[in-house]
Amino acid sequence: MGLLETIKRPEDLRQLSRGLLGEVARELRDELIEIGSSIGGHFAGSLGTVELSIALHYVYDTPDDRVVWDVGHQAYGHKALTGRREGLWQVKKAHGPSGFLRRSESTYDVFGAGHAGTSISAAVGIAEAARRTGASATRRVVAVIGDGASTAGMSFEALNHAGHLELPVCVVYNENGMSIAPNVGGLHKTRDVESYVRALGLEYRGPIDGHDLETLVPALEEARALDRPVVLHVRTQKGHGYAPAEADPFRWHATAPFERQSGDRKKGGGGPPSWTACFAEALGRIAAEDPRVVAITAAMPDGTGLDKFEKAFPDRVYDVGIAEQHAVTFAAGLATEGLRPVCAIYSSFLQRGFDQIVHDVALQNLPVVFAMDRAGLVGADGPTHHGLLDIAYLRGIPNLVIAAPRDENELQNLLATAVASERPFAVRYPRGAATGTPVQERPQLVPIGRGELLRDGSDLALVGLGKTVPVAEAAADALRERGVSAAVVDARFAKPLDTELLGGVARRCGRIVTVEDHFRSGGFGSAVLEALAAEAPEAQVLTVGLDDAFVEHGETVDQWRAAEIDAEGLVGRCVAWLGGTPQRGAASG
Amino acid sequence: MGLLETIKRPEDLRQLSRGLLGEVARELRDELIEIGSSIGGHFAGSLGTVELSIALHYVYDTPDDRVVWDVGHQAYGHKALTGRREGLWQVKKAHGPSGFLRRSESTYDVFGAGHAGTSISAAVGIAEAARRTGASATRRVVAVIGDGASTAGMSFEALNHAGHLELPVCVVYNENGMSIAPNVGGLHKTRDVESYVRALGLEYRGPIDGHDLETLVPALEEARALDRPVVLHVRTQKGHGYAPAEADPFRWHATAPFERQSGDRKKGGGGPPSWTACFAEALGRIAAEDPRVVAITAAMPDGTGLDKFEKAFPDRVYDVGIAEQHAVTFAAGLATEGLRPVCAIYSSFLQRGFDQIVHDVALQNLPVVFAMDRAGLVGADGPTHHGLLDIAYLRGIPNLVIAAPRDENELQNLLATAVASERPFAVRYPRGAATGTPVQERPQLVPIGRGELLRDGSDLALVGLGKTVPVAEAAADALRERGVSAAVVDARFAKPLDTELLGGVARRCGRIVTVEDHFRSGGFGSAVLEALAAEAPEAQVLTVGLDDAFVEHGETVDQWRAAEIDAEGLVGRCVAWLGGTPQRGAASG
Repeated sequence: MGLLETIKRPEDLRQLSRGLLGEVARELRDELIEIGSSIGGHFAGSLGTVELSIALHYVYDTPDDRVVWDVGHQAYGHKALTGRREGLWQVKKAHGPSGFLRRSESTYDVFGAGHAGTSISAAVGIAEAARRTGASATRRVVAVIGDGASTAGMSFEALNHAGHLELPVCVVYNENGMSIAPNVGGLHKTRDVESYVRALGLEYRGPIDGHDLETLVPALEEARALDRPVVLHVRTQKGHGYAPAEADPFRWHATAPFERQSGDRKKGGGGPPSWTACFAEALGRIAAEDPRVVAITAAMPDGTGLDKFEKAFPDRVYDVGIAEQHAVTFAAGLATEGLRPVCAIYSSFLQRGFDQIVHDVALQNLPVVFAMDRAGLVGADGPTHHGLLDIAYLRGIPNLVIAAPRDENELQNLLATAVASERPFAVRYPRGAATGTPVQERPQLVPIGRGELLRDGSDLALVGLGKTVPVAEAAADALRERGVSAAVVDARFAKPLDTELLGGVARRCGRIVTVEDHFRSGGFGSAVLEALAAEAPEAQVLTVGLDDAFVEHGETVDQWRAAEIDAEGLVGRCVAWLGGTPQRGAASG
Repeated sequence: MGLLETIKRPEDLRQLSRGLLGEVARELRDELIEIGSSIGGHFAGSLGTVELSIALHYVYDTPDDRVVWDVGHQAYGHKALTGRREGLWQVKKAHGPSGFLRRSESTYDVFGAGHAGTSISAAVGIAEAARRTGASATRRVVAVIGDGASTAGMSFEALNHAGHLELPVCVVYNENGMSIAPNVGGLHKTRDVESYVRALGLEYRGPIDGHDLETLVPALEEARALDRPVVLHVRTQKGHGYAPAEADPFRWHATAPFERQSGDRKKGGGGPPSWTACFAEALGRIAAEDPRVVAITAAMPDGTGLDKFEKAFPDRVYDVGIAEQHAVTFAAGLATEGLRPVCAIYSSFLQRGFDQIVHDVALQNLPVVFAMDRAGLVGADGPTHHGLLDIAYLRGIPNLVIAAPRDENELQNLLATAVASERPFAVRYPRGAATGTPVQERPQLVPIGRGELLRDGSDLALVGLGKTVPVAEAAADALRERGVSAAVVDARFAKPLDTELLGGVARRCGRIVTVEDHFRSGGFGSAVLEALAAEAPEAQVLTVGLDDAFVEHGETVDQWRAAEIDAEGLVGRCVAWLGGTPQRGAASG
């Protein structure tokens, strides 16, 4: 029996002599590689923090001491040491552990994570609470943050506040030179973390080798004993201990299942290209025709597809780091000088740039395009990563256009329309495989604010947006078999809405059913309700979409089914509604 | 005739010999003091940048060189030198110049401002565009940012990117030790701007005396000639040249009209206390009973009323600097440990913390209270400062409660309810004087999600929220005189809505009119539409609120009138609607 099996909780780890920690690290790393090769997932980050996870739980009296992790991609070792070793074989699957930190999952996850750069803020709050309540007599607080996450402005804000408050918080600055892609920024160039940290009023220790437990444990012990804020600068290697991942940590940040010996990945089943790949291809066509077009990513060149775009246009992509606020206002600055920037940022991460969209882009009516990938339900990444709020948080903003394509050809058309529009313009599209629709050689411009009546009907009209349009079409087919004549509308724009088209079809059919992969509160259906209150006040409207609750991780197809936004669910909702069952209420307490 | 009168444009300034600039500065400062004493307004900031404004326009070839200001409170000198000297006597008044920077106002305002920390991002974008287009052969770009605004995370993100790109951008770091209040943060303590800046990969020059034109002009000339990013560290005195403001720059950040000799302020006309003051008082009562309550401000202790609260509870207020992202997640950290933090942040500034509200507070269902002052139309500060989006950006978020009080007694009750609720809770209230309603000694808890039927009626029901409730009452009185029987509902909660109350009144009256000081798109009326689509599908709904366009600065009362959300406008809308005029459409292109 291995040592690792004896560690059910960190207390067990703390019973071991220090000399045995190396063996624990070997076993833990081996197990993480086994899990990764079997089920894939976020991989290289956690290999780099094996020793750090062990040392933290060895030195700190968790959970009474508070260890706050950032993001969570690197916290699988922490999960294994805190009673979730078995669970990791089901990580990110429904009912398995989250791929990130979750307070509801474990008392050792003292603060949830998912988006980058939050850990120092939370740790400062936790340490200050300990001071107020007197718990600080025994309790120590540590935040773990990577150099990639440290490009996020809120990590600077938090360090600056920590230097001001002078609380005993230890910030482990884990420098591995990587975000998901290689890290960027002036600080990454100078690597002068010491000057940065001391200028903000914190103590600095390091840099030390984060794989050397003989160094790491005493350094953490020393940091733990300090009564002032300190940054412990640790250098690690992303993917450490697995040669293919060490050689290419970017590619191994997340992985499909793979052959452990060779590192060869098990192939997926083919199928249509992803929306992301279609975006990159469409943007390439548009940029080839329009030299004003440049693209911006916030540390996600791969996730957004811009790595492919960059191969064709190497001087036309900016990776600003995990810095969505700056990404948006930098784009606004480019736009004032005649360029046509396309900010490719996931729906949930663009939440970080909300004020900048309002204040720097829309108020000045600048032509910045937001390519919002991962809009809607995203599956395994769960509630931190779903894009279920973007229509609600964007559609109140004047001047902004919001559109969503039903297939990859429409994606190309909408992107071209966005670039040509000379105004702020957001295009949302989902995670996963597109529809397989052939894409035309040349994009066609779409009239802004015009939807499309895909088929007419007499009993009700199904109004979809983006990915729910094919759902509406399939539902209309199924309804026809039940004797219900359903029109289908591709709204195409959430803002401005095609009020003329919607008003007409509402007056003809009397009943409208909207369907969206978004929260119903404030979402697309809500916009349709607003329009029809004026255009067709007699029409009845049923809004189908996500209820007012966060959605756990799992398979996207199951999430769609549970929300009744797949064809079967939609048919059921329509039939019940026609049969007199009242629709679900609005947001309730 | 003075020198200043001869300067119609910066070109005129650049004709002068350097020796005359001191005289220009004397005249400009004198004029700013005259204007401030006559009409009040943002005052001390611009006194501190008189020499800097002159030196920038003297050294840089504006507007072809791009000078990007931050915030705008300190840019009155810039406005005077760029053709808006006369206009400054009408600054912030309708049809007068904005109190901030506006691209639409002048070609010299190359990038709009209002919220803090945006200038470096914009300048980096502008400089990169110049590089791409070849304009950089002659064009230079400079950003001016204060040490207060530099606590904003996005300024760090932008500096880090500037250090990465190595473009010839000059950042003038204007250290006056102040935000509106005295600045905070570790960097403010160490004052080691040099280490901070060099760690991010930028050159550093300074510190120099920002009031000494003999130093400032050559330093800017040297910075302008550099082909790398550089931070020029300038030290100035906020309020420089006016003794009372030098002595108390916090109090003189903004001022009422005053006697120039004595510095005595002309008194206002009395009237009820402000919503802000009522908030501070209510919070004091609640905190006196509940030791868990602490308050957080992002550099606005005065604007939020927390300066008053702090006098009673000196250890229970945190000023984190202009750092809304951190403010929210710091609060979340405090909440995990049993405290009850109240984040007092203006509606429009809380946009900066949107992702943190979603990801760190609501997803974890943590009991953080958001006291959103300046919700609705704010008058003279204009489009950057109106709080017209908060209901739209917040109401899609699960777990969150959103409420608004109709008077100061209800404000106290809702705050107490929020603190007692053990969940995320936002309370919005407007700028300006409250209603004069007596406030009870002890707050009463309000059932969450319960509105109040203030009077019944039969022809229609007016549904208000917060400040629009008294408007609805006045409108109901006026409608009665016209023979229309109008019920009045105080919804009190935008989320969760009182669907039972609203459904009942909608079924009885058949017609519902919502009225809100918020954009109609996605706002309160939109939430009512959602609820009634399920609860009373036969009811007709008219939503009254702000159209889908940014609102210029001016008097609040005029802005309310223009939006038809005052009693007269509301009556007019109701009468027209009852008479068959269709309501205004939804968001249009």
